[in-house]
Amino acid sequence: MSTAAKVYLDYNASAPLCAEAADAMQPWLAGRVCNPSSAHRSGQRSRAAVEQARGQVAELLGCPPAAVVFTSGGTEADNAAVWGGLGWPPRGHLVISAIEHPAVMEPAAALRDLGVEVTHVPVDDEARVDPEAVRAALRPDTALVSIMAANNEVGSLQPVEKIAAIAHDVGALFHTDAVQAAAWIDLRPLVAASDLLSISSHKIAGPMGIGALYVRPGLDLAPLVRGGGQQGGRRGGTEATAAMVGFGAACARTLASRDQAVVRVVALRDRLEAMLLDSIEGMRRNGGEPRLPNTCHMSFARCDGNALVARLDLDGIAASAGAACASGVAHASPVMEALGVPAEYLAGALRLSLGYETTAADVDHAIDVVPTAVHALRAAGLEAVR
Amino acid sequence: MSTAAKVYLDYNASAPLCAEAADAMQPWLAGRVCNPSSAHRSGQRSRAAVEQARGQVAELLGCPPAAVVFTSGGTEADNAAVWGGLGWPPRGHLVISAIEHPAVMEPAAALRDLGVEVTHVPVDDEARVDPEAVRAALRPDTALVSIMAANNEVGSLQPVEKIAAIAHDVGALFHTDAVQAAAWIDLRPLVAASDLLSISSHKIAGPMGIGALYVRPGLDLAPLVRGGGQQGGRRGGTEATAAMVGFGAACARTLASRDQAVVRVVALRDRLEAMLLDSIEGMRRNGGEPRLPNTCHMSFARCDGNALVARLDLDGIAASAGAACASGVAHASPVMEALGVPAEYLAGALRLSLGYETTAADVDHAIDVVPTAVHALRAAGLEAVR
Repeated sequence: MSTAAKVYLDYNASAPLCAEAADAMQPWLAGRVCNPSSAHRSGQRSRAAVEQARGQVAELLGCPPAAVVFTSGGTEADNAAVWGGLGWPPRGHLVISAIEHPAVMEPAAALRDLGVEVTHVPVDDEARVDPEAVRAALRPDTALVSIMAANNEVGSLQPVEKIAAIAHDVGALFHTDAVQAAAWIDLRPLVAASDLLSISSHKIAGPMGIGALYVRPGLDLAPLVRGGGQQGGRRGGTEATAAMVGFGAACARTLASRDQAVVRVVALRDRLEAMLLDSIEGMRRNGGEPRLPNTCHMSFARCDGNALVARLDLDGIAASAGAACASGVAHASPVMEALGVPAEYLAGALRLSLGYETTAADVDHAIDVVPTAVHALRAAGLEAVR
Repeated sequence: MSTAAKVYLDYNASAPLCAEAADAMQPWLAGRVCNPSSAHRSGQRSRAAVEQARGQVAELLGCPPAAVVFTSGGTEADNAAVWGGLGWPPRGHLVISAIEHPAVMEPAAALRDLGVEVTHVPVDDEARVDPEAVRAALRPDTALVSIMAANNEVGSLQPVEKIAAIAHDVGALFHTDAVQAAAWIDLRPLVAASDLLSISSHKIAGPMGIGALYVRPGLDLAPLVRGGGQQGGRRGGTEATAAMVGFGAACARTLASRDQAVVRVVALRDRLEAMLLDSIEGMRRNGGEPRLPNTCHMSFARCDGNALVARLDLDGIAASAGAACASGVAHASPVMEALGVPAEYLAGALRLSLGYETTAADVDHAIDVVPTAVHALRAAGLEAVR
């Protein structure tokens, strides 16, 4: 559909639908596709497709299919995990990091009004959570610890398995938002360590509007969306056959392609980053290792991030000034603030995120264009306007 | 995809994706479709498509586009309405009917654990809610009245506008679940009378996994799914571009085709019903007028509904023993019980629901096949096994 930007470096916002997912969906977008809960054979064909897709998601996660609850996306999965992890009615103490996605932050904040107490564990200047800081935050009534596997803005990876073990030490449940990690990280060890884990289809090149929550077998989770008895009563609502089938195909493609993609993309990303650091003064890289192999997050002094994204768009590069969902918002990212980015760098953030389809030529174009754009904006006095 | 049943009479479970919606979705399932929240032009193209779709939904509803909040379907819309209608934190008194969909019933039941009090208003033997019974149920602390526009099983229509006015008399909000009504009823008067109204895409031949909640302008609703700031903070999560575009197209098609379809389908339904009543003894029709023009719900004494659906499937007819989401459940429908269906008829329910594509030949086939199936099951002693 898009022809505007030749070079797409915004995979963290959304990985465009892959051919495997699109092809798998087509039969379910034509002819008579029935409600998977209908008892007749036409309905049971939808049921079989949904359950096959659930199996493909389960394979990516390394869990039994019955542990996969389809949701409408990563945001709903995160909301359901936070609510469900606190029991019904929700109660007790919740521990999250200072750089969680709003899909965890916002339900956590809302649950305060129902009597839940929330502790935010800070991150260091490389956007990492210290497991010992989590341990220090725990209380006898801590019901849930939710720490993301990979940050969507700067890409930092958290020591999820260590933190999960610490949560379990006091009998708390552990959830990880693996939405941004799924395309790049083997999720199976994370699933093995966790009680709840969220993923999103469109971050791994499946269709938008679908995701999943892993729920550890035996864990009886209160549902967020109720009614109809679908998915064993764990998530009401007619199962979206085509979207689930596409998501399943994207999971299979991720499993098949990820290892190779990581090796290729990390080299491209590292070259991009080194070249930019080399040619632009007043630039800092945000977030330290370990981090996602595809994410390059930086800040420029004396340069407005939103203006830079607009200029790069005209230069043929689709990029982001931070999280897509915060685009156009006229304040610095809470993540930037949490990791202590100096004030003069706060407004000039740029995230270039690569994907399985990113080529060396794409990266070359960015290496050509980004320094010129930054220098031009600085020369035009388009500094931090916020 | 399906070839099993030649004749599809299960439109209340799901109206198969129409060509208009499938065609509209195709460009958004190929090439580089971006996150509608991305600031670059590729993202803004998705944004424009999503907002055009929102406008099409708004046109079906007769409301400003800003009053439309996309959800993952009717179930989520109902859940969001019940939660949101009770304020944040949820409190006070909730009035619903005895035949609401589980998507209203189940959140209502759950909210009792948070201190919400719930009154169920009974229905008469034709599945109608008496507005005066709603009035009698109201209390000074009633925050929300939620009464469905059309029942999904028997198709009875409720006097929504009268009930809404009664709710407003005491300052309560009014929500109506119009999921099953949307294909058949002009929603604009219902929207004008209501504060909240739910619809689902796949019940009007749009894609599964998408729906909408109308929220009266000026009403500040606490969201069910939080995070990311999408849709003005009223529903977090990346907007599912392709699904929304398909839903919008289905809304436009519904507006363009509904009036003619109603006239044609009600004649087919009435003929079907009359012929079956004529040729099968021990049959009763469930639900009285006014009701949906497409729904024929009946019960047979000495006949098991699930066995009948299975037999009809082999005879080339896709039908349902009740609500699709309750398929295979081994107890009588709560709706049947609420409207006082005599015990000997409880297990033998059959719902034939017609759609915009139903032909006279489809109905003729059902007229041929259903009596034979009922008689055969009775002869085989496959009576109520529950």
